[in-house]
Amino acid sequence: MGGDHGTSVTVPAALDFLGRQPDARVVLVGLPDMVEAELGRLSARRDDRLLLQAASEVVAMDEPPAQALRGKRDSSMRVAIDLVKDGRADACVSAGNTGALMATARFVLKMLSGIERPAIASFMPTLRGRTCMLDLGANVDCSAEHLLQFGVMGSCLVSAVAHMERPSVGLLNVGEEEIKGNEVVKRAAELLRDSGLNFFGNIEGTDIYRGTTDVIVCDGFVGNVALKTSEGLAQMLAQYLREEFNRNLFSMLCGFIALPVIKRFRHRIDHRRYNGASLLGLKGVVVKSHGSADSYAFGFAIDRAYEEVRHDMLSKIGDRMSSLGQKAA
Amino acid sequence: MGGDHGTSVTVPAALDFLGRQPDARVVLVGLPDMVEAELGRLSARRDDRLLLQAASEVVAMDEPPAQALRGKRDSSMRVAIDLVKDGRADACVSAGNTGALMATARFVLKMLSGIERPAIASFMPTLRGRTCMLDLGANVDCSAEHLLQFGVMGSCLVSAVAHMERPSVGLLNVGEEEIKGNEVVKRAAELLRDSGLNFFGNIEGTDIYRGTTDVIVCDGFVGNVALKTSEGLAQMLAQYLREEFNRNLFSMLCGFIALPVIKRFRHRIDHRRYNGASLLGLKGVVVKSHGSADSYAFGFAIDRAYEEVRHDMLSKIGDRMSSLGQKAA
Repeated sequence: MGGDHGTSVTVPAALDFLGRQPDARVVLVGLPDMVEAELGRLSARRDDRLLLQAASEVVAMDEPPAQALRGKRDSSMRVAIDLVKDGRADACVSAGNTGALMATARFVLKMLSGIERPAIASFMPTLRGRTCMLDLGANVDCSAEHLLQFGVMGSCLVSAVAHMERPSVGLLNVGEEEIKGNEVVKRAAELLRDSGLNFFGNIEGTDIYRGTTDVIVCDGFVGNVALKTSEGLAQMLAQYLREEFNRNLFSMLCGFIALPVIKRFRHRIDHRRYNGASLLGLKGVVVKSHGSADSYAFGFAIDRAYEEVRHDMLSKIGDRMSSLGQKAA
Repeated sequence: MGGDHGTSVTVPAALDFLGRQPDARVVLVGLPDMVEAELGRLSARRDDRLLLQAASEVVAMDEPPAQALRGKRDSSMRVAIDLVKDGRADACVSAGNTGALMATARFVLKMLSGIERPAIASFMPTLRGRTCMLDLGANVDCSAEHLLQFGVMGSCLVSAVAHMERPSVGLLNVGEEEIKGNEVVKRAAELLRDSGLNFFGNIEGTDIYRGTTDVIVCDGFVGNVALKTSEGLAQMLAQYLREEFNRNLFSMLCGFIALPVIKRFRHRIDHRRYNGASLLGLKGVVVKSHGSADSYAFGFAIDRAYEEVRHDMLSKIGDRMSSLGQKAA
């Protein structure tokens, strides 16, 4: 039902998506009255490319995941994931409660063979383009084997959505030297070095936005802190810049004159263009949009899901995991 | 001998400091020829407030800490720390090799009673002023007890240098709720809650730059990643802004007109004003300047050391640790 803003975000984004991708179909899952009302408002009609699947419940944004999973079997979230499970949809995109989405997806879809933990992966802007970082918060305690699996999944995601043959994989650490880091990270570096992935080695926090590697592997605690620290710093800098340009008449005039430049700058770092976190490791494609996304941002999350399906990310992960398993055997 | 730039940074900064603080004295430690040459260049003379202590060796910036510790007993770093140990100096400020400084300081000065691990603490700008974060990389594996000790030390540091009676202490986590995080962090929250410190509770990465708390406690792996991620993001944003203002003649003109505004913005986030990482937990005050600091930045590191001594941070930590010990007993 679309996170903080509901169908007023998801339905227009779905219609735009159908316009962009003539071979795609969308199933809108939710309270029929609300979805129909939004379709009516936009003068859109259901047809064979735009279907509606009714759900009678909605998971609240702050609802405990276990409660949503056990208590709301006809929630829009659950119904959408069931569609993926039953093969009636190729992917589920949701702006809802992250914990509930992860718990429900894991319960219904199950994990891919060889993957022990699901991970949350997202793209971030860099000086060279973008990088894919995982895990961003699904796992607060990871073993070296989990980090290896994250490397495999991140690499397959980038292969699928950025069309790269052998994306480089970096392991987030406190220094580049092999002796740095804790025991888990040191062991993960060994596993990644022997994995057949294009393993770059250790990278540091500064390397994230430098774009040193295409994929960045870290445990969910570290990844979550790095992501949220970045959000906080960006907010502070934006606030400072706003304050300086609003300080007096002269600086306001400067801001007005420089507006086209500032707008281009803003566009380059517009976080909406990076919206969409992939829930990886599941037997199905699930993409989580930011809860506060607008329809422009939500469109990027749909596009992500589309690319993952179109370029068969799940098979890529499966193939890579089975070749790793054979190596180990 | 002053990090990447040597005496051309440290000596002028020391002279400026003596001008600012009429009750202070400085001992310059290093190769006498180089120090004398710099003093000569600045037409400064040694007197009872500006002393020189000769050292015959210098620790290289990339030298392994163990090698520096064992092999260079007459390095400027070692001699300076020996002065603190012998009570002939109150503090040591260095822009040299961080690992070697930490290893040498720990070996020579020993740890304060009750503190098991030294920590690196630094101040960062926030929307409300500044916050003190630790550990920033001395410890990649921390127990809950270590995090508690970091809380005590950070709190005493802020009391001393920012003159706050009861600074608030936040525990960096992946969510604000008590159930969030790994076992170490959950246990650390319990210890901090019972510590008598002004414990705020869990905070997230976004809270760092919001200035939610005066002190932020985290393990060195997470702290190091958060700090370096911030550096990388700031560099990327600065680069983007530069590129946009240099895109064409019009945008260059905009940049020229807005220069006073941009300069004020830059001043507010000038990292040189936050230079100086305190090595805490030792029986002595040791402050590490960034290796690439200029003399303006190095001055802030000297000021930090001065404030820690003047407001007797070491006794504050000692008192707080012994009251914690009595509580536990």
